[in-house]
Amino acid sequence: MFRDITTLLQDAQGFAMVINSLAEQYKNQKIDKIAGIEARGFIIGAALAYKLGVGFVPIRKAGKLPADTISQSYELEYGTDQLEIHTDAINAGEQVLLVDDLIATGGTAEAAIALIQQLGGVVMACAFVIDLPDLGGSMRLAAKGLSAFSLCQFDGE
Amino acid sequence: MFRDITTLLQDAQGFAMVINSLAEQYKNQKIDKIAGIEARGFIIGAALAYKLGVGFVPIRKAGKLPADTISQSYELEYGTDQLEIHTDAINAGEQVLLVDDLIATGGTAEAAIALIQQLGGVVMACAFVIDLPDLGGSMRLAAKGLSAFSLCQFDGE
Repeated sequence: MFRDITTLLQDAQGFAMVINSLAEQYKNQKIDKIAGIEARGFIIGAALAYKLGVGFVPIRKAGKLPADTISQSYELEYGTDQLEIHTDAINAGEQVLLVDDLIATGGTAEAAIALIQQLGGVVMACAFVIDLPDLGGSMRLAAKGLSAFSLCQFDGE
Repeated sequence: MFRDITTLLQDAQGFAMVINSLAEQYKNQKIDKIAGIEARGFIIGAALAYKLGVGFVPIRKAGKLPADTISQSYELEYGTDQLEIHTDAINAGEQVLLVDDLIATGGTAEAAIALIQQLGGVVMACAFVIDLPDLGGSMRLAAKGLSAFSLCQFDGE
């Protein structure tokens, strides 16, 4: 089963509810930037960054960013993949909220966190629309002391 | 030369200025949905959709959307590529604002417009952060009677 958020996002009220609910969670916290993971994390992360009045940083698949980057590989079910971030995207000490649409095993999120931390950024929390807790990703982040907030959870995947 | 908007978007004031300036252009027009083209169009389009209180529809590269889609191919400098949209993304008669970060030759935008129109949507305008007018894309859209608005233009590319 594939959990897909596109039908939610194309509904004006649904999309606003997603962004407002995430913003409510973080409105009283210091955030310098939101980093979103390609590609659905761009949709959620950019709208949330606008709502919270902070900058948006894209974390992309290998070879997609035009300026100097650093890379981090992560494991897929079969093989590995890479994420990249611009080296000038985050300044040392900046508080970064990591955003993606969904957390499953957490491999992608962990790679993104490693990139932010390599640039000296502080990942203050991770936010998702959907968590599949049985796949263990949110527990992996919690074990590292990172808050993994999600708007909804689906068991038994 | 590659015109890149990531340094603008990672700046809180720069990002807000981009979205607010685009929103100002369309605040008094009837828009049902914003369609954004993968991947940088997701960043601009989703934040603008949130600001304007409308739904967001992703137009993606081939094979990325999980439900039923229609496809449209378009020409690249060397070869062709494809864009896809979910068949349930747009209802007949809906007013759609197409958003991308940059318009050059306009091939990608034309493919996205064709997809929206195949679903019965009305492309009420196209919005970009950057136009490279010498490459002719905005004129191609204008020749079809479509408004192509951009926040900045760079000549001689």
